[in-house]
Amino acid sequence: MAKQDRGIRTRQTILSAAARVFETRGYQAATINEVLTEAQVTKGALYFHFPSKEHLAQGVLSEQDQWLPIPERPYKVQEFVDATFLHAHRLRTDPMVRAGVRLSLDQHAMDLDRSGPFLRWTEIGVELLEQARSQGELLPHVVPAETADVLVGAFAGIQAMSQTLTDYQDLMLRTNRLMRHLLPSVVVPSILLSIDVSEGRGAAVHAELLRQGQNHHPENVS
Amino acid sequence: MAKQDRGIRTRQTILSAAARVFETRGYQAATINEVLTEAQVTKGALYFHFPSKEHLAQGVLSEQDQWLPIPERPYKVQEFVDATFLHAHRLRTDPMVRAGVRLSLDQHAMDLDRSGPFLRWTEIGVELLEQARSQGELLPHVVPAETADVLVGAFAGIQAMSQTLTDYQDLMLRTNRLMRHLLPSVVVPSILLSIDVSEGRGAAVHAELLRQGQNHHPENVS
Repeated sequence: MAKQDRGIRTRQTILSAAARVFETRGYQAATINEVLTEAQVTKGALYFHFPSKEHLAQGVLSEQDQWLPIPERPYKVQEFVDATFLHAHRLRTDPMVRAGVRLSLDQHAMDLDRSGPFLRWTEIGVELLEQARSQGELLPHVVPAETADVLVGAFAGIQAMSQTLTDYQDLMLRTNRLMRHLLPSVVVPSILLSIDVSEGRGAAVHAELLRQGQNHHPENVS
Repeated sequence: MAKQDRGIRTRQTILSAAARVFETRGYQAATINEVLTEAQVTKGALYFHFPSKEHLAQGVLSEQDQWLPIPERPYKVQEFVDATFLHAHRLRTDPMVRAGVRLSLDQHAMDLDRSGPFLRWTEIGVELLEQARSQGELLPHVVPAETADVLVGAFAGIQAMSQTLTDYQDLMLRTNRLMRHLLPSVVVPSILLSIDVSEGRGAAVHAELLRQGQNHHPENVS
């Protein structure tokens, strides 16, 4: 294994350990020593990759948008929907994403800048909606920055409510309902029927990305 | 002061202290001793009103819907909007409401049942939307339980995003945007223009309730 690969793996090991520690203990209570014990790496290795607890948290926070960009679609609104459903799917299946989303809503992480995920998701949304507008997919009054803001904020709450009430069992259903309430105010009626907001959308996009990744990197097939 | 009044005041003193402790420390880290110190009441008084930390937290959680019902309006959709804006206003101005909302999103409060506020707000929403439907205010496809669910979840996220990015400075603007995105999918077009979703709505409803309260209980005017 090349030195660089080993570095990347160590970094991932540390991040996964940090995600587990933050998720169990919360940001404020978590300590670097707990991450060290959980990760089973040397102090030197940890501090090489992450000089402080805040760096660890920022690392976990930024893992949630690593799977983008999502596949191209004829309608950019579909890509906007796909990004949301893929995120919902990963939230249910990937502990790292779950830890990142929880950190970004951890209101007791006083000294941690938690704005990153909100701003990055909004940026991604704005970009897709600008493209949708230039393709004539949006109603004329829509302001992409406002709509992206509403969707990102609303989704953050939808997932928190789903976690609290059903431990994420109904997250896909709630995401579907959110889309059915929001899209008619945003998208021209003539393409609404062509947009897939079904509950299985997240898993389908995820499988598609896995296939693409395998085609691009055949050495990853085990 | 009658014995009963004194009991109510002591209870409020303890709840306010608990709200401050939970908000600074988070549910998991907070202890009953810290609440005792903050409240400056006897251990006996505290345990009389709240036998455990969970009882304290449930007390704080349930303070956020104490101001309902909101004033009657010709359109029930307006009451639905008013309840949301009033809640947003109180979130900005009342530390107890803020502490309750944060507790309900505190994902590290493992042994605390945080579903209460989500369920109660959804119930209130369903009731108002059912009335709106019977008055012909809703589009025919609307299912009140789904729409109330979407609004409650979406608002929870909108407020978290506003707190994270601007410390609640833009909460009213974000609430206005959420309503402008949701209501056109829910309400018949002919009354949309009659619904007030302006940013000042929460403060206006709050002032109206204060005036009503003073009229009903003139002894409260100081």
